[in-house]
Amino acid sequence: MSLIRNIVVSGGTHGNERTGVRLVEKWMEHPECYSACCPGVNVSLVLANPEAMRLNRRYRDHDLNRAFSQTCLDASFEPHQYEFRRARELDRIYGPKGANTKTDLILDVHNTGSNMGLCLILSTRDPFTMKASAVLTQEFDEARIYYQPEERSASPYFGTVAKADVCIEIGPQQHGTLDARLFERTERLVKRYLELADEWNRGELQKRAPIQVEVFTQLRDLGYPKAWAGAPISAMIHPELLGRDFGALKRGDKLFRTFDGEDLLYEGESDGRDTVYPIFINEPAYYEKDIAMSLTVKSVEEW
Amino acid sequence: MSLIRNIVVSGGTHGNERTGVRLVEKWMEHPECYSACCPGVNVSLVLANPEAMRLNRRYRDHDLNRAFSQTCLDASFEPHQYEFRRARELDRIYGPKGANTKTDLILDVHNTGSNMGLCLILSTRDPFTMKASAVLTQEFDEARIYYQPEERSASPYFGTVAKADVCIEIGPQQHGTLDARLFERTERLVKRYLELADEWNRGELQKRAPIQVEVFTQLRDLGYPKAWAGAPISAMIHPELLGRDFGALKRGDKLFRTFDGEDLLYEGESDGRDTVYPIFINEPAYYEKDIAMSLTVKSVEEW
Repeated sequence: MSLIRNIVVSGGTHGNERTGVRLVEKWMEHPECYSACCPGVNVSLVLANPEAMRLNRRYRDHDLNRAFSQTCLDASFEPHQYEFRRARELDRIYGPKGANTKTDLILDVHNTGSNMGLCLILSTRDPFTMKASAVLTQEFDEARIYYQPEERSASPYFGTVAKADVCIEIGPQQHGTLDARLFERTERLVKRYLELADEWNRGELQKRAPIQVEVFTQLRDLGYPKAWAGAPISAMIHPELLGRDFGALKRGDKLFRTFDGEDLLYEGESDGRDTVYPIFINEPAYYEKDIAMSLTVKSVEEW
Repeated sequence: MSLIRNIVVSGGTHGNERTGVRLVEKWMEHPECYSACCPGVNVSLVLANPEAMRLNRRYRDHDLNRAFSQTCLDASFEPHQYEFRRARELDRIYGPKGANTKTDLILDVHNTGSNMGLCLILSTRDPFTMKASAVLTQEFDEARIYYQPEERSASPYFGTVAKADVCIEIGPQQHGTLDARLFERTERLVKRYLELADEWNRGELQKRAPIQVEVFTQLRDLGYPKAWAGAPISAMIHPELLGRDFGALKRGDKLFRTFDGEDLLYEGESDGRDTVYPIFINEPAYYEKDIAMSLTVKSVEEW
């Protein structure tokens, strides 16, 4: 993108992910915390799902962060479910999604129960979010880049209402709780994105030398073993894999453990690939989505 | 108690605490997993809160494990809220609470997000549960005894429907998830209670030499700092305290960290006591109860 004029910092897209909620609440009360970061840029703060926050749940009727596809936003009827209505409202305020959106960048702060560190999720190869995120992998331990390419119009994520976005996944943190160390690291990280937006607007960020980054790119989601579709899960994440997000999983490595204590091994991909890098391992919110982990491939790039 | 004739093993008293749920489901399907542990004893398995399990929440309308006081059970009207109805149903099946209960022992399996290890919660100084739990602290790393004395009639806990009970709190495990290592340890632990019940019935357990145990006894719950009652919390658990359940907290130690990064220190108890042992630190389910942690005192006893 050329100049960054409008940034949205959002928390509470999932109501029980409290780091973003409290960060946005803090900044709403104390604008001096962030206002000097990027002079001339309009920074909007939003608590995306107040109903879910009130209930201390991920969502009330439907996952809000799966409600922003153009199809959902364009529905000719007024949706019955709260989150579909709220998605349209957020789209009216910060969008409209597409070429004419008024928002250049959404920084959407999430938590995960998985051991993801500071995971920076990019949905598109936007020059600013790539460069800024690359810088942040140098500045923050455990900052990692997850590239989840999205066809923007079809994508259900809130961030895709803007021209570019970073979904910031902070973990491990149990849903409904706070972790002081993660809160402070997240606040510094989000402030750095704002400062880097200013650096971008001054034409300086673009001049930085290329940065070598590890990029974890979405491959596929992996469900839990089940005796038949719809059955209860028949195995758990293997103890040797639990907590090892972003580590290598090779053909023959232990993947699941059944309730009878049997080890199930990773068999490799159908295309012959024998090493993947699982993330979102054992994320609580993904049990209902039947996702035991997301498999990624790792590459090294210069950004 | 004299002879143990009827034992209830329950899971899912809180619907999103899955270790107990899956353990009970496994044993229902494979009675051979436990049936040889205590011949002659009638072991009943129960999923205590199926509605909450279906919703993957702690409870539907009201915390089931706060619904078993005699007052709640005796209400002359049919309660509107699901859990109060379910409590009366469980009391009819396994009680009735009081001297005439048909159940000698309830082993109620819970999970906590706090770093509690295998926490054995005793509500009364019953000889069997004391001796058996003492044995288990020798057999299992991280097995600890929490003594939470309850006036049995007024107590709201499911376990108090029986003559004696152990509430088994397994953690850290995020609600709504499973952890294979904890599942396997829990299964072994519950089986050992059944075997020790048999040893008790044979008169052998009583003959074991006294066992020195650390007993953590309930002192008081500690809430989060707030600007005023009903305000949002103004501080988080201090990073140096997080995960240190059962460790000593001394006057002057770091207790909370505000959102502005200020450290709040533990000031000691009003009675002059200057060392306590916090447990249930940062338990997700206790945010709504305004409990940041439970403070205990530690003693060494011979059981």
